[in-house]
Amino acid sequence: MIYDTIIIGGGPAGCAAAIYAARKKMKAVLITESFGGQSAVSATIENWIGEKEISGFDFAKKIEEHVRAQEDLEIKDNEKVSKVEKKEDIFTVETEQGESFQAKTLIVTAGGHHRKLGVPGEEEFDGKGVAYCSTCDAPMFKNKEVVVVGSGNAGLEAVIDLLNYSSKIYLIDVLPEIQGDKVLQEEILKSDKVEFVPEVKIKEIYGDKFVERIKYTEKEGQEKELKVQGVFVEIGSVPNSDFLGNLVEKDKYNQIKIDEKQSTSQQGIFAAGDVTNKVFKQNNIAAGDGTVATLAAYEYLIKQSK
Amino acid sequence: MIYDTIIIGGGPAGCAAAIYAARKKMKAVLITESFGGQSAVSATIENWIGEKEISGFDFAKKIEEHVRAQEDLEIKDNEKVSKVEKKEDIFTVETEQGESFQAKTLIVTAGGHHRKLGVPGEEEFDGKGVAYCSTCDAPMFKNKEVVVVGSGNAGLEAVIDLLNYSSKIYLIDVLPEIQGDKVLQEEILKSDKVEFVPEVKIKEIYGDKFVERIKYTEKEGQEKELKVQGVFVEIGSVPNSDFLGNLVEKDKYNQIKIDEKQSTSQQGIFAAGDVTNKVFKQNNIAAGDGTVATLAAYEYLIKQSK
Repeated sequence: MIYDTIIIGGGPAGCAAAIYAARKKMKAVLITESFGGQSAVSATIENWIGEKEISGFDFAKKIEEHVRAQEDLEIKDNEKVSKVEKKEDIFTVETEQGESFQAKTLIVTAGGHHRKLGVPGEEEFDGKGVAYCSTCDAPMFKNKEVVVVGSGNAGLEAVIDLLNYSSKIYLIDVLPEIQGDKVLQEEILKSDKVEFVPEVKIKEIYGDKFVERIKYTEKEGQEKELKVQGVFVEIGSVPNSDFLGNLVEKDKYNQIKIDEKQSTSQQGIFAAGDVTNKVFKQNNIAAGDGTVATLAAYEYLIKQSK
Repeated sequence: MIYDTIIIGGGPAGCAAAIYAARKKMKAVLITESFGGQSAVSATIENWIGEKEISGFDFAKKIEEHVRAQEDLEIKDNEKVSKVEKKEDIFTVETEQGESFQAKTLIVTAGGHHRKLGVPGEEEFDGKGVAYCSTCDAPMFKNKEVVVVGSGNAGLEAVIDLLNYSSKIYLIDVLPEIQGDKVLQEEILKSDKVEFVPEVKIKEIYGDKFVERIKYTEKEGQEKELKVQGVFVEIGSVPNSDFLGNLVEKDKYNQIKIDEKQSTSQQGIFAAGDVTNKVFKQNNIAAGDGTVATLAAYEYLIKQSK
């Protein structure tokens, strides 16, 4: 059995792709470990258009239910893709669970994950003061004191987002100088709410129900404490693109390069969402691009069938 | 008062743009005649990701309520933009209601409208058998007989979508031959469900609660009737971009040309949704691209403020 398309990943991009594929009557299978993507663990999402406020859990449930309502769509959940190969225009997808699927096209929506600090308290307070997306979560830190970890562009943009809300922002980096673009540096240093602290390593995040303080070391190695109610971790993001090997072109961050139709460098492979080199990464953008990916794959199949 | 941005249009692209602008604390005003875009009049929407089924009315209400929940966002509804001018990096937007607004950036999400047949019954049965989007509505015509009006690529793609659902598809055109791409022609003529009827003009659409038949004339001018339960009108779409004059580059269909950051040819003007030359036009795509437009405008403003 050769599918028209295999959709890899169950976040907003994959769910959109799957729903559109089913409605186009494509023979499709969705392979995913779980539904909802990175937002599934969010305490509150306020920027999924149409929902003033929804928990990550309910968001994941909503899009999963929409997927499951599609007739004729196959779903393999709790499965993780381990390998993809191409032979004579047919893709073979293998999973860690030992299954194998074949298709004419692939829609890769495997997402990514934020690089973590790996310190005690980080996981415990994820969504309770520890945050990885300032565009999403800055408004929840009104009049609060926060620390932004990482002074690359992502960190500086997080500071700019937080300037509108927080009362004090510590920007820290393990390096001695701010890393991001000069123009962003100038923008944040205009404000006396911002303080850059160089050569800092976070050791632990503490709190009761929410973050209350962090323990860190400075250059001299001396342990100190800082009272903050928020920790924004901005030290990079890792796309889940390894299983594709060299089948598609990736950028230096291992993100899959896409064009305006979500096509990759490999004919028949389309990609959308956080696994790609799309500049902005948001749930609505992923859902829109997942939709485009399916419509482009559908168009591609029609043209191939001649 | 000079706004950071003026968002023009209240469909999914404009609502997404406005919500993101408000959360970024941009000084923003949304100017729109109404909310929900072209889908506001849909009987049923089944492909807005997360909603198995929602009426156009409820969809419009949901996204309007999300917009209205944003603090500090100004909303001018029941207003229509008539003119835009640029002087010394500032845009002035005038409305038909006689108001005038100034801003550093514009996000144009003014949408488009499907070209209508302009025959009796078309408006009455809109959403009750008369449809303008086969990607959206084909699944509602299972085992039904339908006519597709217009044999350009949009019409042929509609036939392909309907092949999966309908029992009989009449493809008609006022011209003597099928207009769309050869590859699409071959694809549809494979099926004996499809019948092309050339040089046909629809005169009227009849029915009780839903479409039941159409009256039309053939080449000879003779009036005939055809029993169908669906009429897909695929004779083009018109973007609402006239008020921009020559400020931005447009394609031959009057659609605003955009790049991967939703930037137009005019610095400071961004655009998203059906008013643009984006190939695929769907609510989720519009919402995603509206989000990108605001994030790009925000980035642009930070870089300008140096």
